[in-house]
Formats: sequence, C-alpha cells, structure tokens
Amino acid sequence: MSVTAAAGFEAAGVEAGLRSGEGPDLALVVNRGPSAAAAAVFTSNRCTANPIIWSKQVIKDGVVSAIVLNSGGANCYTGMLGFQVVHETAEAAGRVLDLSPGDVLVCSTGLIGEQLDSTKLVAGVARAAGALAEDGGGSAARAIMTTDTRPKQAVRRGSTGWTVGGMAKGAGMLAPGLATMLVVITTDADVESADLDAALRAATRVTFDRLDSDGCMSTNDQVTLLASGASGVAPDPDEFQALLVDLCRDLALQLQSDAEGAAHDVAIEVRNAADEDDAVEVGRAVARSNLFKAAVFGNDPNWGRVLAAVGTTKAAFDPFGIDVAMNGVQVCRAGQPDQPRTLVDLTERAVSVVIDLHAGEASATVWTNDLTHDYVHENSAYAS
Amino acid sequence: MSVTAAAGFEAAGVEAGLRSGEGPDLALVVNRGPSAAAAAVFTSNRCTANPIIWSKQVIKDGVVSAIVLNSGGANCYTGMLGFQVVHETAEAAGRVLDLSPGDVLVCSTGLIGEQLDSTKLVAGVARAAGALAEDGGGSAARAIMTTDTRPKQAVRRGSTGWTVGGMAKGAGMLAPGLATMLVVITTDADVESADLDAALRAATRVTFDRLDSDGCMSTNDQVTLLASGASGVAPDPDEFQALLVDLCRDLALQLQSDAEGAAHDVAIEVRNAADEDDAVEVGRAVARSNLFKAAVFGNDPNWGRVLAAVGTTKAAFDPFGIDVAMNGVQVCRAGQPDQPRTLVDLTERAVSVVIDLHAGEASATVWTNDLTHDYVHENSAYAS
Repeated sequence: MSVTAAAGFEAAGVEAGLRSGEGPDLALVVNRGPSAAAAAVFTSNRCTANPIIWSKQVIKDGVVSAIVLNSGGANCYTGMLGFQVVHETAEAAGRVLDLSPGDVLVCSTGLIGEQLDSTKLVAGVARAAGALAEDGGGSAARAIMTTDTRPKQAVRRGSTGWTVGGMAKGAGMLAPGLATMLVVITTDADVESADLDAALRAATRVTFDRLDSDGCMSTNDQVTLLASGASGVAPDPDEFQALLVDLCRDLALQLQSDAEGAAHDVAIEVRNAADEDDAVEVGRAVARSNLFKAAVFGNDPNWGRVLAAVGTTKAAFDPFGIDVAMNGVQVCRAGQPDQPRTLVDLTERAVSVVIDLHAGEASATVWTNDLTHDYVHENSAYAS
Repeated sequence: MSVTAAAGFEAAGVEAGLRSGEGPDLALVVNRGPSAAAAAVFTSNRCTANPIIWSKQVIKDGVVSAIVLNSGGANCYTGMLGFQVVHETAEAAGRVLDLSPGDVLVCSTGLIGEQLDSTKLVAGVARAAGALAEDGGGSAARAIMTTDTRPKQAVRRGSTGWTVGGMAKGAGMLAPGLATMLVVITTDADVESADLDAALRAATRVTFDRLDSDGCMSTNDQVTLLASGASGVAPDPDEFQALLVDLCRDLALQLQSDAEGAAHDVAIEVRNAADEDDAVEVGRAVARSNLFKAAVFGNDPNWGRVLAAVGTTKAAFDPFGIDVAMNGVQVCRAGQPDQPRTLVDLTERAVSVVIDLHAGEASATVWTNDLTHDYVHENSAYAS
C-alpha cells in the first residue's frame, strides 16, 4: 500500500523517542531506482522550517533517493543549531544507505521553537534503515501521524503497468499556500523530474491547495513525488496527470475527514465565476468564516454568513445576483430568500454549499471543516 | 450619558417586539440643532444590508436629523421588500418628528435573510418619538444590544465647553472594513459636515478598524457622528480629533471586552514595520489565526503560531530578524527561542503580544480575542 505500492521503493516507520508519548515517530522512504527523479512543492509561508530550507536545496537537481520524516518537533525557528540537526539527519541517512546526503529530503512536524534531539534522530534513521521493507508503506504512514487519528494512504494503477501511491499526514494547520501537510507520493513510472514537477504542481493546485480546514498555513509542509522508473514504462502524460490528480484529491479528502475536532466535511463549490482565481477566492473566504463554520457545527443553515463572507472578496459579482444552495436546498436566489432554510438538513457529516456568482464560466471547489468545541479543545492543549 | 451627553440631542429606547425575546429593541436619536451636520462610515462588505444602502444616500448631503436603530433583524438580503421597510421606517420617523425622511438614518442588526415586520417597526418609531428625553442616552444604548451583555457608552469633554459622547453595540462579526458595529456619536461642538467626515475617518481608521475579534466582517455596520452645534463652540480641530480618537478607542475596547464568548482580550502590537499598512497586515494576520487564538484560550504561549501567521503576510521583514514577546517575556529573538515560554503567564484576561519586525519605524496595534468554547457555542446557536 501507499508509498511501497509502486515497484522500486522501500519504507519503514520506527520509534525514535522524539515524541512525548509512545509510538512510531520517524519514517524513511527509499527509492531503489533505477531512476531517482523527483519533484516537490513547499509551503509558501515565509517563516519556513529548517527542513524546508534544506529540502529546497536538495530538490534543485531533481534527484532524490530518500526521505526522512519525523514527528515530535517542527524544527522551525530553532536557529543555526536547528539547521545543523537537519544536516546531521541527512548525513546519517546517506551514511547508512550509502547515498549522498544531498539526495536526502527531510520533513518535520510538531511544535515550533523547540530543538530536536539529534542523537535520537540519527539513531532513529539507522533503526529505520534496518527495518526497510518492500511492504513498509503502512508502517511509514503510521509513523508520520501526529494528531491524526488514522493513516492516510492511496494507490492508483495506470493502464500500462505502472503504479502511483502515496501517504499523507496532517490534521491541523491545514490551509494552502502550498501544501500544508506532509505528503510522499511514489511511482514506478519512468518520468523525468521536470515532467514530475509540472504534473505535481498541476495536481496540488486543484487538490491540496483547495483544502482549507482552519485557515492556518503551516511552516513545514511539503508534498514530494518520487519516480523509480522500476516499471520500465513511460506513461501517457494525460493519464499520469489524471491519476495523480485523483490520488492527490483522495489524500486531501482523507486529510479533511480527519481534521482536528471536525464534525462536518464541507465542500464549497463556486460556480460561474469570472475566472478560477475568483472562484477560489470566494470559496476560501467562506471556508475561513468562523461564524459560518460555527453555524455548520450547530447544524444551522445560516446562509447570511455565506453571503457576508462572499462580500469581503474582490471577485466579480453582482451582490443581488448571487444564488446559494445548501445540501440541495436553494436558500437564496438573486440575493433574496428562496426556499425556507428550515428545509436544510445538516445532521450528516458531509455538507454541500453551492454559490452561483453568475459572473462567468469558471468554477472551483474548496474543502473545509466546521468550527467545533473539539477543535478549540485540541488546539488550546496542543503544546501541553 | 452617551449620545445625550452633548447638548441638543434627545434619545429613547423602546420595545418594538422585533426580537423573539423580551426587552427594548428599537432606539431613536434626534438632533435638535441648531446644526444638523453629520458624517458616517459604513462596512466595506460588498454584500450590504438595506439600511446601509439607504443610509449611504441620506449621508450624501452631510445633513442628518435623526437615527433609528433596531435589533431583531439585519434587513440584509431581503430584496426590494426589505428596502421598502427601511423607507417606511424613515418616513415614519419623519412624520412623527416633522422631519424630511431624507434626513433620517436607519441601522439594523440581527439575522440576515429574514424580513422585518414593518408594522411593528413603524409603531416602535412612534413609541420611541413619544419617549424621547434629554437623558435618554442610556435607554437607547440598551435598546441596540443583541448578544452584548452590557451597554457601551463613553463621553469626553472639550476644554472650551463642548462635549462628545457615544454609544456602541457589537459582540460578534467584529472585524473591520470599516466599522463592524453600530455606533452613534454625538457632539454639541459646531463643526461642518466635511470636517466631521475627515475627523471620523481618521478616528475610525486607528480604533474601530483595528478591532478584529473574529475576522468576520458584517453587512450592516455603521459609525455615525452627529453635531448639533448647541454649545455654540467651534472646537480646536486638533483637540476635537484627539478626543474623538480617544472616545472611539474607549468604545472599541468596550466592544472587545464584551466580545461573544471571549476569555482574553489580546492586544497585538507590531513595531518597527516598514510602514503602517505592513504593521496592520501583520497584526491582523495574527489576530485571525484560529490556532493562535485557541492557544491563548488554553493559556498556552505558543509563539510558533504567531510566527506562522506573520509568515503568511506580504509585509517587509527578514524571517530570521523577528522578535516576539508575550506578556513581557521575550520568547523569540531574531527567529530563535530566547526566554523560556514557561515564564509567560496568560491567566489574566489581558494579553500583550509585541512583534518587532526590525524593518522600519512604523507601528500599529490590532485588538482581538481568543477562540473559546463559548464562542463556538454562541455562534452555533445564534439563529435558533
């Protein structure tokens, strides 16, 4: 499953003792080739973690042989010492795997502003290298969990004998720009790094970038795509792109459904926008309205809060030409009440909001969650 | 007190039966002159309520003789019928007060997308006109409350025999753009409407516009300044501006301290920004981070969430040149941990966050609240 579904990859998840509790907290994914082509996208947060600074250098030549991922600390705003810890981690992986440290990506997640214990990290890398297995994907997917309640994995099979699989972690600080989570995707298709890069950017733009659980952009997020070429198949580019989008959407929706404290998964579809940017801006504004999100938690179809959020955007629309439907009930048409809000049933976890701007032909869907007591509880107690 | 502290004004608050519960829900403020100069600022939300659409026309000539304010319904997205209700309200006030309806402002607050009962409104206006009193300010301030737990009032006295006083309501949907609340300020100073407008805009820019309790911009908000000239004094412009800013800040902080469900009042001071816009952008980004706000609720000095929010802005700064202090403890210096976070005591209601960007000489303070269980509860149950 997941990152070892494609041929040419091994993975492992082990306990390195970085977290306060028990359980695995370090994952290793290795590409055995023959190719080591790779692409990655990173958070656009300007306050970036040390592993991001490191990984942006590593990915420049499009060659990656291994990824180390740890929970138990973000290694962000930890200064030069923190950067040294990343460097030591990559060197440790290079040493035990007989690779160049410059071909090792590092991803970290956890609390900002606390130093990671490099001794534990280095020992953990060695232990993970010893546990590498061709069916280690599930073990790796569990080791990158933090407040996640379940591992996130997905696999797709191409029609010409190649496979793409992936794992993801992320339950809070889920907002794009880009990424907002740790994701590793592997394929045994034979694709060059420049093509991987284009395909990955196109896929994340309409999947992970459209997930906006709590409006908070992380400092550490990274989505990586590794290609081993072990299938010997160069896939049809359109099929490769389509399956990659499908896989990324699958993982993004798994992240949504496990978001911290969430009781509803909300899909905000914006139709007939002047352009795609407008559609995303409107969807995101609604996804970031705490009042709307609290109303959804209370099963309250308060569509006025949808319009109040739409009205804060610069998107093209006539304020009195907007339609809003919630779970199929047309609560607002042309800026006036239409069907009674009492017809809307919000008791199920899945919630659909459709906003028709009547301003063009573009559309986009943004996924978010409701604002709940459990969200407040989990995030007021995270550091303790 | 409040809107009747200045000479030349009468006010009343009555029960019009617009709200589901008992209690006053309609306020009337009348300027008896000799001057009827006025200025107003409105929400920048593009989805505006009918009373906003009406009031923007009324204020154009800088002449206002009366304001009707109701709770129990926002009269927003209620179509042509909703606009007609505003018109009838102004006409009713004009009739009973012998004024032009075109000199009557209307403000409404409550649920979006529900029609107000115009019969009740018109009867309420007549009842309020009969109850007008030179000491009616307190009664009016209570009648505009919705989820507010207490009336908000403030008065300042000029050094040359003039007075400025005001009342405000607002407990949720508190984010600027501008206004985000209903505020009426009156003065007996003799000031022309153009000067009132300039003074009001300058004052709201650094007070109500810097209050960002929950990031949600309202469709109905309005801050109005009425001048009767009854003191016969033309105030020193600098003193008038200074007292108006002081009064607006007082009312804004009263709104902050009564924000729905809040357990902490947070002042985010951004220092040494390249310009004031940068300082406000950074302060607002932190004020809108649900993760930061939930951490404050949990008395958790999670300064990483401050930096993660700062990193989402376009403001000028070196990510490794930022200092952060919380309640006087320098938790981060030059992007690295400094004093231990365990020294920060967040048990008091007032919380201070100081962010030094080291990028210039501008500064700004944004006021917000924490994200609490009570906020989620109140806003998930509002419509019911």
